[in-house]
Amino acid sequence: MPAFPSVAVVGASGAVGVELVACLEARGFPLSSLRLFASARSAGRQIAFRGEMLTVEAIGEDSLEGVDIALFSAGSTASKAYAPRAAARGTVVIDNGSAFRMEPEVPLVVPEVNAGTIEGHHGIIANPNCVAIIAAVPLAPLHRVNPIRRVIAATYQSASGAGAAAMEELRASTVAYLAGEAFAPVVMAHPYAFNLFSHDAAVDGETGENGEEIKAVRELRKILDAPDLRIGITCVRVPVLRAHTIAMTVEFDRPMTVAAARVVLAAAPGVRIVDDRASNHFPMPNEASGQGDVLVGRLREDASDPSGRSIAMLVAGDQLLKGAALNAVQIAERLLG
Amino acid sequence: MPAFPSVAVVGASGAVGVELVACLEARGFPLSSLRLFASARSAGRQIAFRGEMLTVEAIGEDSLEGVDIALFSAGSTASKAYAPRAAARGTVVIDNGSAFRMEPEVPLVVPEVNAGTIEGHHGIIANPNCVAIIAAVPLAPLHRVNPIRRVIAATYQSASGAGAAAMEELRASTVAYLAGEAFAPVVMAHPYAFNLFSHDAAVDGETGENGEEIKAVRELRKILDAPDLRIGITCVRVPVLRAHTIAMTVEFDRPMTVAAARVVLAAAPGVRIVDDRASNHFPMPNEASGQGDVLVGRLREDASDPSGRSIAMLVAGDQLLKGAALNAVQIAERLLG
Repeated sequence: MPAFPSVAVVGASGAVGVELVACLEARGFPLSSLRLFASARSAGRQIAFRGEMLTVEAIGEDSLEGVDIALFSAGSTASKAYAPRAAARGTVVIDNGSAFRMEPEVPLVVPEVNAGTIEGHHGIIANPNCVAIIAAVPLAPLHRVNPIRRVIAATYQSASGAGAAAMEELRASTVAYLAGEAFAPVVMAHPYAFNLFSHDAAVDGETGENGEEIKAVRELRKILDAPDLRIGITCVRVPVLRAHTIAMTVEFDRPMTVAAARVVLAAAPGVRIVDDRASNHFPMPNEASGQGDVLVGRLREDASDPSGRSIAMLVAGDQLLKGAALNAVQIAERLLG
Repeated sequence: MPAFPSVAVVGASGAVGVELVACLEARGFPLSSLRLFASARSAGRQIAFRGEMLTVEAIGEDSLEGVDIALFSAGSTASKAYAPRAAARGTVVIDNGSAFRMEPEVPLVVPEVNAGTIEGHHGIIANPNCVAIIAAVPLAPLHRVNPIRRVIAATYQSASGAGAAAMEELRASTVAYLAGEAFAPVVMAHPYAFNLFSHDAAVDGETGENGEEIKAVRELRKILDAPDLRIGITCVRVPVLRAHTIAMTVEFDRPMTVAAARVVLAAAPGVRIVDDRASNHFPMPNEASGQGDVLVGRLREDASDPSGRSIAMLVAGDQLLKGAALNAVQIAERLLG
């Protein structure tokens, strides 16, 4: 990989794409050139980067020729159509979609957790699901000192995970609600203003798990290299714009005190402890938004496990940043060594 | 108790008080007279009941003389000041506050669950915390067929639980947010627009549990008559106006199938199953609002418990109705026999 690689963002006009460009700029990513691609529908849009306006180009068969690193966030169909060909020609693809995440030869990377798996890539590196990333950042350092046996989680997921149109629907439907006007949801299946609903991913008719839950479970196991980790998770969409919150109850192999967990988390990269009992100040999506760190707090013993092996916590992370764009750019940074 | 008792509502101008009057009307409660009381600050306000406008009176020492049933929702201070005296003079007090709930001689009642405890009252009957009620309605019938050993829950609690002023702050702060204007929270400690936060009850500095969690645990055990029930709960306030949602993982004494749980819940009073996997339609606060039933769905095996003894579910109930006013009026109805 050259010290100043040529970089492309595919899906540059989406909610995550815009953040990918912003992260490359904010982190001073050392690149020789940046090209922006999207579907023909979004071609021509201008996006600012380092004081210049870059024009989004329509993606085509040979668009990524000569590109060293391609950051994909354009949906599974686009990833499947363009990523393998680009990888075969020497581009390293970092894919924010779910198309390749569970392929055994594709590293699924949260750099704070398993950066070492990057070097085994075969041209495609997968950026995990946002819930998996935000949960993995605090779980991994704890798992290293005391293996985690079971996680029970409930999520409070923001609109951004369903894209820019969902964020706009949350805003527009709330405006309508406050004005006493009717609003017919288009992006979401259910009214979003001052409402919440079980995650919008399709539900397995047999097991009752939804697609988001299935992804979170499989990907967490792969990221943590813990194939037997037992995870029960409920994914819920809440009327919040761009940060996910997760309530987790974590059972360890051996007894675990809150004090010990706090020491581990205080030293963990990517974690910021927000745990002020006296002022009732804990992780919140408004404070996680725009931040690279995952906020961790409400650390306490799980009152339902008398064995002293379980800890409860509340975490919040920016879905668009650490849950997507930032994590992808952090992977790209590791490629530079 | 006379067939047509004289009734008073204390705290009639609050969010729950208004719903108490509305429930008495909607359910055709057989009363001979209705008087409305509140603090001196709210006296003079007019509230409609059966086509008449009733005037809210300032509560005083002897206000409840001759009242057969007094429905209190005026805060713990008012309950402590007026309820014991009224009870000693023959009024049956149904108290929506937390002042007396854990007193051993005070029945803590969800009529679908433990109506039989009402007859042991000594003048005061306690209406439980809203989370405890909404959780107890589906848990109790399951507990009867297969004892529950452990519950892990995360709540999505609406503004209404913090009163009418909190509901107004959620609306007003959202209007300001959408207009790009600053808003200084007054009722809540944190910004509420498109945000969520750990429940606003004070946090125990030792255990890290907040007051809402402590209430929910203690009260659920009392309502279910299950003093050893292990409960781990995380209470969170979400930007929803008036219905609470709870994600629960429930571990039973013996193996429990989803099919068996569904049969029990389908026959349970106060429960409405909303569990359509094909159309991704599950309990939501907007559909629970204004409803007396607790909506129950997302019924599935807990993937983290290979023993087959655990079920996950999502429930939603109107905090102001079944979580407060309706439950109190249902208790009053049982007093009439």
